[in-house]
Formats: sequence, C-alpha cells, structure tokens
Amino acid sequence: MKKVIYLDNNATTQTAPEVVAEMLPYFSEKYGNPSSMYAFGGESQHAIAEARKKIANLIGAEYADEIIITASGSEADNTAIMSAVNSFPNKKHIITSAVEHPAVLEVFKHLQSKGWRVDYIAVDKFGVFDMEMYRSVITKNTALVSVMWANSETGTIFPIKEIADIAKQNGALFHTDAVQAVGKIPVNVADSGIDMMSFSGHKIHGPKGIGALYVKRGTRFLPFVLGGHQEKGKRAGTENVPSIVGFGKAAEMAEKRVKDTSKIEALRDKLERALVEKIPDAKVNGDQRNRLPNTSNISFGYVEGESILLHLDEYGICASSGSACTSGSLEPSHVLRAMCVDFNFAHGSVRFSLSDKTTEAEIDFVIEKLPPIIEKLRKISPFGRK
Amino acid sequence: MKKVIYLDNNATTQTAPEVVAEMLPYFSEKYGNPSSMYAFGGESQHAIAEARKKIANLIGAEYADEIIITASGSEADNTAIMSAVNSFPNKKHIITSAVEHPAVLEVFKHLQSKGWRVDYIAVDKFGVFDMEMYRSVITKNTALVSVMWANSETGTIFPIKEIADIAKQNGALFHTDAVQAVGKIPVNVADSGIDMMSFSGHKIHGPKGIGALYVKRGTRFLPFVLGGHQEKGKRAGTENVPSIVGFGKAAEMAEKRVKDTSKIEALRDKLERALVEKIPDAKVNGDQRNRLPNTSNISFGYVEGESILLHLDEYGICASSGSACTSGSLEPSHVLRAMCVDFNFAHGSVRFSLSDKTTEAEIDFVIEKLPPIIEKLRKISPFGRK
Repeated sequence: MKKVIYLDNNATTQTAPEVVAEMLPYFSEKYGNPSSMYAFGGESQHAIAEARKKIANLIGAEYADEIIITASGSEADNTAIMSAVNSFPNKKHIITSAVEHPAVLEVFKHLQSKGWRVDYIAVDKFGVFDMEMYRSVITKNTALVSVMWANSETGTIFPIKEIADIAKQNGALFHTDAVQAVGKIPVNVADSGIDMMSFSGHKIHGPKGIGALYVKRGTRFLPFVLGGHQEKGKRAGTENVPSIVGFGKAAEMAEKRVKDTSKIEALRDKLERALVEKIPDAKVNGDQRNRLPNTSNISFGYVEGESILLHLDEYGICASSGSACTSGSLEPSHVLRAMCVDFNFAHGSVRFSLSDKTTEAEIDFVIEKLPPIIEKLRKISPFGRK
Repeated sequence: MKKVIYLDNNATTQTAPEVVAEMLPYFSEKYGNPSSMYAFGGESQHAIAEARKKIANLIGAEYADEIIITASGSEADNTAIMSAVNSFPNKKHIITSAVEHPAVLEVFKHLQSKGWRVDYIAVDKFGVFDMEMYRSVITKNTALVSVMWANSETGTIFPIKEIADIAKQNGALFHTDAVQAVGKIPVNVADSGIDMMSFSGHKIHGPKGIGALYVKRGTRFLPFVLGGHQEKGKRAGTENVPSIVGFGKAAEMAEKRVKDTSKIEALRDKLERALVEKIPDAKVNGDQRNRLPNTSNISFGYVEGESILLHLDEYGICASSGSACTSGSLEPSHVLRAMCVDFNFAHGSVRFSLSDKTTEAEIDFVIEKLPPIIEKLRKISPFGRK
C-alpha cells in the first residue's frame, strides 16, 4: 500500500501503539467478566477502575464515578439528551445550535417531532455562536441546552462556560458534545456549569467503539441502555474491558499532549497560509481567533469538494469534506450552510485535521500537490466560474 | 497468577487468539474511517463488509444487510424492543417471558411503567415455557413478543420457531435474545418467523463491546442510537472496525464449532453426574432434555451460592451464581424464582458453563474440590438444615 498522509484526524485517529499494547492482555489472558465474583474478574474490575480515573483526570472531573462509559460519542450524546428530557418531563423546550454533530441534531429533530419545542441557535458567517439569540430564547421552561465545545468541521470553539452559566441561571441542564475538543485543547469541567459532557476514545488515539459521558454528581440521570447493573446501573452491557483500558491510556497520553499544541498549530497555519496564497478564491472557514489548533477548513471556490478529495487520494492524502458521518451526500455541509457560506464556495470545502504525528514534509507535500489539482478541476468544473 | 479453571463461559469468553490476530492491523495500521471518501477508509469498509457476511452466515441470514452492528447484546435487545413498540404505536400490548435477561426484562418493565400492558409468560419447575399461557394472552393488539432462545442461567432452550409462529399468526413482531444460543448450538433464522434476533461477540470468543441485531428484510425498524448514517442509517456512531472484524472471525470459528458439541456435552454431563452423585441434596436445574450443551446449573441445598463461589475461587475455579449482571445481590436469581425452586436450594445454585477449551483434567479437578467445600459450608451454614 502506498504511503498515507493522514489529515483526517477529526474523523478518526490512529490507535496509538502504546494504547494497543495496554489493551492486548485483556483479550485472551485477563478476559474475566468484571461483574463476576472471582479474583479473575476482579482483575478486570481493577483495570476498569484505573482507566476510569485517567479518563476523569483528562477532563478534570472531580470523581471517577462521574464518568459513564458508552460505546461512542454518539451514544453519549443520545444518552445525555434523552436523560435530560425524560428527567424533566414538564419542561418541553430544548435548545441546541444549528451546527451540532448529527448525534445531537438528529435527537433534537426526533424530539421536535414528538412535541418538544426546539430552538437551534444560529451562528454568524465565522461560525460564532449567536449569544444574543440564545439569551432571548432561553426560559425557565427550558429543560436542556446542548451546545458543542468545538465544531468538527471548522474547529470553531464556542464559549462553553458562558453558555453553561446562562443555562444554569435559567434552571436548565447543560450538556456539551466535547468529542472534538477533548484531547485537542485543555478541557476542564470543574467549576464550569457543565452538567454532562460527551467525548470519545477514537478521536484521541484510543480505540474505536468506546466513549464516555461525564455526568456531574447530583445531576438527575436516567439510563439509555437498560439491563444489567454495569456502570452502577447507568449503562447496561458487559464492560468492554480492553477498550476501556485503551481509552484510559489514550486519556493519559492526551493529558500531556494538550499542554503544548504549538507544533501542530504551526503546521496547520503553514498549510493554510500557503494554500490561500497559492490558490485564487480560497477562503478559510471558521472563527480564526477561537479554533482548534489542528483543524483547517478551506473553501476552494467553483470546484466540487468530493472531486478534490478523490484527487488528493491519488497521492495518498486523506482529508474530508463535510463530516465523515454525512459523506456520500452531495449536499453542502450543514455547518457551512448555517454559516451562510456562498454556494460556490460551500461545495468546494475541504477539512484538513492534523495530529501530533503530522510532519512538515507531509504538509509540504500537500502544499505542492493541491494547487495543480484545483487548477485542473476548475478547468472542467460544472460550477463554472463567473 | 495461579492457574484459572474458567467455567463461566456464559458470562464472557476468552477472545480467541485467532480473533485478536485478525483485529490487530485495524488499530494502528488500517485505522481509516469506513465512512470516508479515500481508499484508506475503503479498506476499513471492505473489512466490515466481509465480517458482516460471516456474521450473517453464522445465523443463516439471507442478506448481510440484515445484520445491524451494535455495541452489545444488551444494546441489540433495547434496540429491537424499542423499535417494535415505536413502529406500532397503536398496539399497546407486549409479551415476554419471566426468565429473560435483564436487557429485555428491564425494557419491558420500563414500557410497563409508560402504559404498555405486559404479559410475562411463566415457566414450569423445569424452566419450560408455558405455551398454554402464551396462546391465551396473545391478541391482535400484541405489538411484540420477545422470548429468549436459550436461558443464560440454566441453558434451557425454548421452542423458538413454535413461539415465533404463534406471534406471526397474531400479527405481532417476534424478537429473540439469542445471546446464549448463538455459537453454542446451531441457530438459523431462515424460515423461522423470527423478525429480529440479538446476539453478541464476547459470548462466542469474539471481543467484548460488540453485538448484532438481525432484522429481517421488510421489518419495520426505527434506530435506537440516532446520528450519523452508519449501518445504513440504522445505528449511529463511528464503526468499531477492529471489533467488527474480530466478531466476524469469531462467527466463522463458531460456525464450525457448533457442528459438533459432543465433547463439551460429555464433559458437562460428567461434571454434573459426579457432583450429584457425590453431594447429597444436589439438584440439576433446567430442562435436561432441551439444554445448551455447555451449561449446568446445580443447586446445593442449604448453602449459600456466593460462599461456594468464593471457595471455588481459592482453587482458581471460576463459576457463577445467578447471572453476572446481577451478582452482588443476595436475592436468588429471578430465573430460579420463576421456576419456583425451593428457597433453600435457589440460594445455593451454581452455574458452570464450559467452552470447547475446557479439559477433562479441569472437570476432574472440580469434581475433586467441590464436595468437601459443600460439606464444610453446610457445617457453618446460616440456612441450617432440617
């Protein structure tokens, strides 16, 4: 297989070899069920407890039992939202933003179809959260505010503490989908007004198929997956011991990584500056003052994003247009549409998301290969160019 | 660590080394997101497709897309039940058995609290399904019948095809929790009247944290975890590629294993006969004519099951009392209670569940060690002995 230049770390990340090494003994050697009575299961139980502490540490949770393990960030989002609305059945108003991940948006749409009143807070053309609209729609009848910490497509960071404070002042629960923030920037739930927070293993070089929901002690909570007493009755299903252990290791590694993201940010900035300079009608999307250090979303006017990706793929360069969860669709991304990015630009947007493994040589390679691709595509583009 | 004699394979199994070997490349090498556009993600997509075929083959599903991957058997059960009741909102009656796994029972109890009328079909003292009661309660207003294929605690096998046929005759959907049956006995959904069927990876020497729901083509279906378009829109969340690949390999191996279970059955029978012969007041629970070949549930009168387990643990022998999901509780198992097992016997029940790795030497070791444990415990038992 040809060399892969992996610039799609917001979609998923390499499971770090150190993480895999920690997981391995729990498949075929220490495979006991942690809910069992015997010492062999106790080993698994102990391993989970240690991992849970590391996961709690990464986000500054005060107590390890505030971490509920799930199978994904999506499940954590579903769990948080359904728990909130079912815990406050008399409050029929819920708030989210227009640029959330589908795992939040689809649950809100579902609830809307079931009679909940929903406000989707707008963003401006930079992707900045409309605080004024938010303040104007929230009421004492709002059960839940769910707003993401950082946008998966543009990297734009929302002022979560401020948004949470306003939720608290109105007696609403506050949940944040922090799947893209955790492991990329310092995230701390302490003294934040955050009641619930979702995050995921595979976005931070842990394994796929494992996520977590932080639920602050004292928060009303109703489980999503019902059944056995695992996770102290908060989420049924035999504990996924190897993946929890791997998630713990990944959390430990991420905690160190987020302390200095200057290298990754410098590479991202180099890529962005060079592409905007070399390619006419290239515009960076998102709030460039408040952005994840690893993410660059660039619109190349009058070309089709999917075509760009296919050409990049020929060089082994992995990037994304829209979020991976909705790829295959020719609709422009809902995030860029919410930002009112011009149609001719929204269609030609590409997201590059770096990791700390990304090298300068890789960035230089993209800077070399992409401009001729855009030039070629524009010559044959069905969008034409005015 | 001392040698482990693992006789708790109904709780979880060793992930087979062959399974781990197939999973390994998908952590740190082929880690692409299968929903992405580039070839690197296409590899993951292809791997999932191959695994899905193997999983479909194991249960005789006609089409691979009848398999929806979940994170556990519990999630599959929750998904099936919630999908059924929400797909038929006007039918407010649902049926299950009294001896289901908590992942089914708890969802039924939840629905009961929300206004659904629920019938829990009784079993007799052998754990045999009360077909007469079932026929008498089912109506055209029944949305769903959910009855397990084989009982986790006693191994008793229910006549699933007959139960499914009656459901079909009444226009009800039929779901079966086959978590304990799949991989232990031949299970075939073809021409069975089964609309949905749950099963799990970690019970068949696959990894923990992965399960599946079979949904027959044409069955009304509503997703449980909402969000991205994964699993053709039927279950959101980034695909757990390594675990799906591992589940596929485990399915392939199980398909061969279930063709001949005579060795495991012979060992189980040897254990059972010897213990019942050597230990007074020892009774086998469950339907001995229709039982999983690997499972033996034995009540030792006038002693406490948890104490037996702790003593067995000192010899490295892993067994279970009740299901692992509810251990930690001193209540006798809901399965044995439903079978009206005498109180003095229900408390002292131990489940041994073998795998094809179980050796005769291990069985002989248990036959040697257990009788003196029971004798010792009876001398100090708080239950006394009449």
